[in-house]
Amino acid sequence: MSMELRRRLFDELDRIELIDSHSHINPHQPASRNLADILGYHYYTELAHSAGVPKDRIEEPGLDAREKVRRLFACLGRLTNTIQYSWFLEMVCVLLGYSEPDRVLDDFEGIWELSERRMASPDWENEVLARSGLRSVFLTNDFDDPLDGFNTSRYVPCLRTDELVFHLARRGVRTRLEEATRREITDLAGLREALGTLFMHFTAKQARACAISLPPDFAPARVSEGRAETALADLLRHDESAPATQRRAVSNWVFWTLAEYCAEFHVPFDLMIGVNRRVYEGGVFQGQDLYDSRVSLIQYAGLFNAFPQVTFPVSVLASVTNQELASYAWIFPNVVTHGHWWYSNTPTYIEHDASARLEGVPRSKQIAYYSDMYKLEFALPKFRMYKRILGKILAERFVIDRGWSEEQAVDLGHHVLRGNVDRIFGFGSEPA
Amino acid sequence: MSMELRRRLFDELDRIELIDSHSHINPHQPASRNLADILGYHYYTELAHSAGVPKDRIEEPGLDAREKVRRLFACLGRLTNTIQYSWFLEMVCVLLGYSEPDRVLDDFEGIWELSERRMASPDWENEVLARSGLRSVFLTNDFDDPLDGFNTSRYVPCLRTDELVFHLARRGVRTRLEEATRREITDLAGLREALGTLFMHFTAKQARACAISLPPDFAPARVSEGRAETALADLLRHDESAPATQRRAVSNWVFWTLAEYCAEFHVPFDLMIGVNRRVYEGGVFQGQDLYDSRVSLIQYAGLFNAFPQVTFPVSVLASVTNQELASYAWIFPNVVTHGHWWYSNTPTYIEHDASARLEGVPRSKQIAYYSDMYKLEFALPKFRMYKRILGKILAERFVIDRGWSEEQAVDLGHHVLRGNVDRIFGFGSEPA
Amino acid sequence: MSMELRRRLFDELDRIELIDSHSHINPHQPASRNLADILGYHYYTELAHSAGVPKDRIEEPGLDAREKVRRLFACLGRLTNTIQYSWFLEMVCVLLGYSEPDRVLDDFEGIWELSERRMASPDWENEVLARSGLRSVFLTNDFDDPLDGFNTSRYVPCLRTDELVFHLARRGVRTRLEEATRREITDLAGLREALGTLFMHFTAKQARACAISLPPDFAPARVSEGRAETALADLLRHDESAPATQRRAVSNWVFWTLAEYCAEFHVPFDLMIGVNRRVYEGGVFQGQDLYDSRVSLIQYAGLFNAFPQVTFPVSVLASVTNQELASYAWIFPNVVTHGHWWYSNTPTYIEHDASARLEGVPRSKQIAYYSDMYKLEFALPKFRMYKRILGKILAERFVIDRGWSEEQAVDLGHHVLRGNVDRIFGFGSEPA
Repeated sequence: MSMELRRRLFDELDRIELIDSHSHINPHQPASRNLADILGYHYYTELAHSAGVPKDRIEEPGLDAREKVRRLFACLGRLTNTIQYSWFLEMVCVLLGYSEPDRVLDDFEGIWELSERRMASPDWENEVLARSGLRSVFLTNDFDDPLDGFNTSRYVPCLRTDELVFHLARRGVRTRLEEATRREITDLAGLREALGTLFMHFTAKQARACAISLPPDFAPARVSEGRAETALADLLRHDESAPATQRRAVSNWVFWTLAEYCAEFHVPFDLMIGVNRRVYEGGVFQGQDLYDSRVSLIQYAGLFNAFPQVTFPVSVLASVTNQELASYAWIFPNVVTHGHWWYSNTPTYIEHDASARLEGVPRSKQIAYYSDMYKLEFALPKFRMYKRILGKILAERFVIDRGWSEEQAVDLGHHVLRGNVDRIFGFGSEPA
Repeated sequence: MSMELRRRLFDELDRIELIDSHSHINPHQPASRNLADILGYHYYTELAHSAGVPKDRIEEPGLDAREKVRRLFACLGRLTNTIQYSWFLEMVCVLLGYSEPDRVLDDFEGIWELSERRMASPDWENEVLARSGLRSVFLTNDFDDPLDGFNTSRYVPCLRTDELVFHLARRGVRTRLEEATRREITDLAGLREALGTLFMHFTAKQARACAISLPPDFAPARVSEGRAETALADLLRHDESAPATQRRAVSNWVFWTLAEYCAEFHVPFDLMIGVNRRVYEGGVFQGQDLYDSRVSLIQYAGLFNAFPQVTFPVSVLASVTNQELASYAWIFPNVVTHGHWWYSNTPTYIEHDASARLEGVPRSKQIAYYSDMYKLEFALPKFRMYKRILGKILAERFVIDRGWSEEQAVDLGHHVLRGNVDRIFGFGSEPA
Repeated sequence: MSMELRRRLFDELDRIELIDSHSHINPHQPASRNLADILGYHYYTELAHSAGVPKDRIEEPGLDAREKVRRLFACLGRLTNTIQYSWFLEMVCVLLGYSEPDRVLDDFEGIWELSERRMASPDWENEVLARSGLRSVFLTNDFDDPLDGFNTSRYVPCLRTDELVFHLARRGVRTRLEEATRREITDLAGLREALGTLFMHFTAKQARACAISLPPDFAPARVSEGRAETALADLLRHDESAPATQRRAVSNWVFWTLAEYCAEFHVPFDLMIGVNRRVYEGGVFQGQDLYDSRVSLIQYAGLFNAFPQVTFPVSVLASVTNQELASYAWIFPNVVTHGHWWYSNTPTYIEHDASARLEGVPRSKQIAYYSDMYKLEFALPKFRMYKRILGKILAERFVIDRGWSEEQAVDLGHHVLRGNVDRIFGFGSEPA
């Protein structure tokens, strides 16, 4: 019974038109052109590398796309167990229409040809969006992105701020900020104005969120203007050789100021908490980051208290932090649970974490899932993976354990998959 | 098959007469007088607040009980997914006898009237106890509670010691201690005598436990008498402006001395580990506490070693600490697992944590569950939630996976739900 | 359906001939001589002690084996829920052939006699190995073990290095090292040579791994030769009263040098991360160790980066560290997940942890399980416990959730249970 129930619930959930609240899509080239755009995704290159393919086989300069895919294909047999492989399989079978899942590993040629043919279709982007049930997709935009030349209803701008908070000591970052905002950064007032200019620019282009990823040891704190002014002066003079305490003071000041602008511009501030960058120095592109799971949301208590008017959709990298996230969202009106991020985006952790959220956090305060994708084709298998798990949780923990009707269960699913995205990011019900 | 098995096991477990080893019941007013006593529980007010009801709508001075409930009721639709809402539903349907669960959200008037009528019955308290299968309920008594005017077999006193350990720097706390014990606290000897007097008073009134909740950074340590004497002198002179190191020394000394008295008076010492108080300053009453899950029972190793003759029923706030708890109870004879506390008292965490305990800790060293309730009506849905999960674990992990008979499974359930409470808190088999 | 599927998968997995990659078997006395060798295992003595049997009842000097077992038997009723008891039951029923599982607790006499008779058989060792499907078993050898007098194809030597890294300050350890290697340890060069001599000796005797258990606060770091030379001098002069910083520098240098030798001799370096020794000083033999789960693999990032040519099979003591392990194995080519260790070797944690690994780590980089046993009889129930859980995971998460065929599922099981052991420890496919 439970399997049929799960399937029925999945089918209903799969009809929901989605807004994907976090991705890395390039709006000028959103869909893949060939399999290299798929298997070149770090989720595959890093697994292939981990499973024994040397880095220079994957990242050889001038490597032809087809040859790169051929090499990665040869390694897939060692990855068939992974959920990432199941995404690949679903893309190949459902989106490309390949009909023999059991032959995939042995048919590099056939699949490569198929992908080239299908992806060359001028309507491929629309087809993928339609097949995936995607209405809109959030982007991750550099602060100096002009945000021109694409439909911002379909591809929703989002101001990514890692560089501003953590790398302002780099002269190149400051120069880009000066050029993007046409302001000189010679003191704190100038920096504040520049940041405000970014918010003006982004919100004028329909940006719906400000976002940042944060290392486990970051603990935001308010820094006085005087302290920040001195620290910034040091940083402007010495760039990256400015003392760590000064750079940290500037980081904190910028972060806090971004939160102030989020309040002023009514923009949610997405916090993605817990990543250590470049832990594996010999790793492939984007396959070098890991984490220290010893992080606590208590580090953010001061922030949540200081900005009751800002909504913080929070993602955590480690499943062991999920209970804190659920508890903080249960207590703080301005904390919202946000998706299942990266190393926690595998079924066992999603099931454990999503169950806990669904049982303890108000239904209006959960954004179930986002794709984090670089190419549109990934939304379908990733969201489906999530919806299958959600169907399982709703079947077992709500319909069976709590006697809910299937309608009630689907309604909850709708709420967390779509309704909350609309409300929290301010889409209202107007058509795209 | 598994569903019927689960139901049969639940039915058997549901017959067990319970002793609830931790609650916040007021023995002079144990049952609710109306729905405001139910929905006024912080589990609802904090969720409503988190879901968007302004604090002053909930805590408006002079707010009429009915109006308060009306306002909270209006928000329940955003909380239907939570397990806390399911408790409410079960109270309304099973205890109040409301027959249409699907209409609850829309029938504030009807349910309010029903609750007023039912709760006004002079036998309501006894009816709730009987319906819930409760024989006795542990209290959480302030150290200066006279413990008069109630039946201590039914409502079992428990000496709560947070204030003594953490707030002795407050002049008001010391004054209350002096008045309660009729001793002057001018030096360590006086303080020690005062604490001993509390134990005499409490045990004379049939208290069965000493209890305390502890922040994640607390690590009990023995402090020499000389060091403690100096620290106490500072604290008596400067109250809360005494240096943190001095206040910490006094905390440690008082905590250690309480453990000594637990040994002397043969009283278990309930440790509730991991809460940070007042993390969310803008929260509603009792809805401000959260935690840092980075705590380890290694902090208590010295204590467990120093007091082999004291039983420590230990509760942990975060599920990530549960494996340590199970391991410490597996090794230390004097460590007992104790219930599923607060933010870990939701089905997903209970299931994971209880399963691990049932598989690794001697059956004689587990106290399955306590209600933590403020009003008697909560015992029924909370214990039932637990018993449903226990039924599921016993069905799946013992009867199915390990080939146990249903009798063996129910016997294990009885052991952890009731038998261990009797033995550990010294009830023997005498009737209440 | 799922139960029959699980059973079919288990039956297939149970046919696989195993190589047990970590045990504490004494190759000169690998099987038990009587029940005291079984119930004397710390898993039982520590549980009995925890459940109330005084230490001196268990460890009384000169205690007769039969009487010891009688005393432990009397306590088993308090442990029937534990998975450890289920191992005992399976040993008694499957290996000894006792036919009435429900009478075990009441039939100490019968089972004792049966065990004496069966275990006295000259073929008992071979019988146990055959019945358990064991082809080879890794040992845990002291560094000065002569490794003589046993079949190293069946009992595979493994160089255990805890003493070298953490206790070189003890004069006795250094003397043993000098005697074993016939080198004087008077400076760093001598120490390095001695360590190299151990690797020569061990690999000449077919050792397949170097292994060490590590406390949670250990964070390996390269130490310069100059710094290490000074530290070693101090340590040679002052033994255990050498300053902690000096001892730590020597620990780090030895650890790093072991990794260098692992590279040179092509030997995997098993890291068993997270144990605190002697936490419970009053505990029984081997029942005193616990842990602090606040450990992170980020502490090992430098090591993993520095030795890309060394394979590190990593075990973690706490389930909360498992996600980090899975993530590090997903990214680092030289990190391999290794079994379910000690306090995490219970079904709930195995299921959660193994599921996460199977979904996120390349199939070629997982060693599913090892027994950690002291006597051969334990392999059967421990591996079977694991295989039942693996059967469940494969049934539910692969066959049902992902549409795999049973053949594919079994093939994955074979890969992680056996194939990877062969490849990672270099057994090839030659017969034993």
